[in-house]
Amino acid sequence: METRPFVPWEQMNAFMIDVFKAYGVPEEDARICADVLLESDRRGVESHGCNRFKPIYIDRIVNGTLLPVTKIDIVKETPTTVVMDANNGMGMVASHRMMKMLIEKARTYGMAGGAIYNSTHYGIAGYWTTMAEKAGMIGISGTNARPSVAPTFGVEPMMGTNPLTFTMPTDEDFPFNFDCATSTVQNGKIEYYERNHQPTPAGLVITKDGGTMTDSGAILKEMRKGNCALLPLGGLGESTGGYKGYGFTTIVEILSAALAGGPYMKALSGKNPDGTNRMYRLGHFFFVINPEFFMGLDTFKTTAGGILRDLRASEKAPGEEHIYTAGEKEHLAWLERRDKGVPVGESIQNELVELRDKLNLPYHFSFED
Amino acid sequence: METRPFVPWEQMNAFMIDVFKAYGVPEEDARICADVLLESDRRGVESHGCNRFKPIYIDRIVNGTLLPVTKIDIVKETPTTVVMDANNGMGMVASHRMMKMLIEKARTYGMAGGAIYNSTHYGIAGYWTTMAEKAGMIGISGTNARPSVAPTFGVEPMMGTNPLTFTMPTDEDFPFNFDCATSTVQNGKIEYYERNHQPTPAGLVITKDGGTMTDSGAILKEMRKGNCALLPLGGLGESTGGYKGYGFTTIVEILSAALAGGPYMKALSGKNPDGTNRMYRLGHFFFVINPEFFMGLDTFKTTAGGILRDLRASEKAPGEEHIYTAGEKEHLAWLERRDKGVPVGESIQNELVELRDKLNLPYHFSFED
Repeated sequence: METRPFVPWEQMNAFMIDVFKAYGVPEEDARICADVLLESDRRGVESHGCNRFKPIYIDRIVNGTLLPVTKIDIVKETPTTVVMDANNGMGMVASHRMMKMLIEKARTYGMAGGAIYNSTHYGIAGYWTTMAEKAGMIGISGTNARPSVAPTFGVEPMMGTNPLTFTMPTDEDFPFNFDCATSTVQNGKIEYYERNHQPTPAGLVITKDGGTMTDSGAILKEMRKGNCALLPLGGLGESTGGYKGYGFTTIVEILSAALAGGPYMKALSGKNPDGTNRMYRLGHFFFVINPEFFMGLDTFKTTAGGILRDLRASEKAPGEEHIYTAGEKEHLAWLERRDKGVPVGESIQNELVELRDKLNLPYHFSFED
Repeated sequence: METRPFVPWEQMNAFMIDVFKAYGVPEEDARICADVLLESDRRGVESHGCNRFKPIYIDRIVNGTLLPVTKIDIVKETPTTVVMDANNGMGMVASHRMMKMLIEKARTYGMAGGAIYNSTHYGIAGYWTTMAEKAGMIGISGTNARPSVAPTFGVEPMMGTNPLTFTMPTDEDFPFNFDCATSTVQNGKIEYYERNHQPTPAGLVITKDGGTMTDSGAILKEMRKGNCALLPLGGLGESTGGYKGYGFTTIVEILSAALAGGPYMKALSGKNPDGTNRMYRLGHFFFVINPEFFMGLDTFKTTAGGILRDLRASEKAPGEEHIYTAGEKEHLAWLERRDKGVPVGESIQNELVELRDKLNLPYHFSFED
């Protein structure tokens, strides 16, 4: 049972837009950014929602590593492809523009691909792939991020948690939506554990001596110093397939940087050698595939839906009551929260009040009563 | 140290072509199929090489579930896409034709995608993606396969081991080549364990009661009866990310069937309800991305190579001497085997002699001396 207070969706949306605007983000862009963050909360992905509003967006605008006005340069455009320089503006604004362009290209040509460089955190990757899905297409996206994942047989945080995300249309009430880090766990989840005073499960993090760590706050701190790293999906070594997760993470690292010729890995730390902040200069990639150029959208939807229904109906392990398919938990979270709003824990409440008071905005939150 | 005898590459190639021809495969097609199987051995991927020549190809031609003459119907073609019906012929022949078409399309349009249905085993997925890479492009491919992987919280073999394969150009002596099953382990590996009288490591297979199995022969037998299943990458349950591997497997299952509107999961068992054989009717998908439509091939290669070199140079775990990148072990295997030939264990030797004697072909293998 959810015990945290809720903030109504409309109120949170209006508040975030007003705060973004107060920090110099143009209104149209602020609407996009607020929607991306709220979509994460709508899906129950609390690691990438309003918990990140202040620390990852507002604080970075304040410290100068995220520019509130997004100057987008189209560096290259062909009938099927786009390369964009986001000039260290809002990654979500550049990604929104990119997906709108690619969807139009895929409508005409069936396939489209894009790459963005000099960007910043673009929120949940699944927001962008869902734009394609809502247009009746398959969306694929990934992004690099500051180094936190060690390669197989390594201990040094080299690559980002690098999601490799696919959203695909189905004939069900919700799409197939696979949106997660290629590491066993991602930074946002550890931030979430820390915020809720929970330990990180053992075996997800590797230390320099090859051991593990579970103190969530210490993990976040030591990882930035390079003293521990996340393990790739599949875990330690090769016997349980850790090299496969490592491979997926590498694919995302390459596609995020190499299509656009942008920086990668250690260059994305957001820190200068002297410890001062610098631009993150992230890279993202996007592919859009239009099923109408294959056997048609209806065929695609029916086949995909049939696969997902058969999976859910298959025999469960002893003690398990439900087999989920990717995107289903997000849909269930939305049904649960739709009429209530965003659940906010204590630290988010404090951040909202702090921003409201600082900017003297006319909002009153019910959790203050 | 390799203790098995070798068969020279040229001899094995000529022998396989002659055997394929004797079973009705046209010479041009036989050359393609032999090269695909040998490429697996060249890369040291022994689960998909000449060990499968007799059981997965020749025996299936004999039992009627694989047609030696591949009638290819182009069901749909646009400037960027192709859908093909392989009519239960050689999956490798249809895939070869597909990749040649897609590479030409991507040369003109930057992006191309294809789907094949009513197909059969197409060998290592990495052969097809490497065709793109040799043309200076990124290759992505996947295929469904007979059901052997259980979804998270399930015990029933529902999906194939479904590789999701990427090959990408680099400025090094070998490409980035990520070619593996989205399960912790794949059937070919268990066949390899069985052939070499080795157990399958614990924790890779789930039984109906939620336990595990390690007897490789028993796993293969019980899996076909539906009594055990492979676990997705990330392992059992959700805590170590098993739902992520399950998600990747599902992506491949959907793309392999839904783009072409072909069958999926249980329909791919190769068995009728009464236990008699039927056509496998597999589906494959292929995407080709041309870096020249982004910031150019040279930029792509240099960036990709830089990432891979930095990964290899990163700090190693205590006791580890080498951090590999995907494709490196395959390259090292080739360097090791290039001048020697294909290593063949006892069971492959027996199969080669059996086929030779049956067809009365003029070959003598040095392991017979």
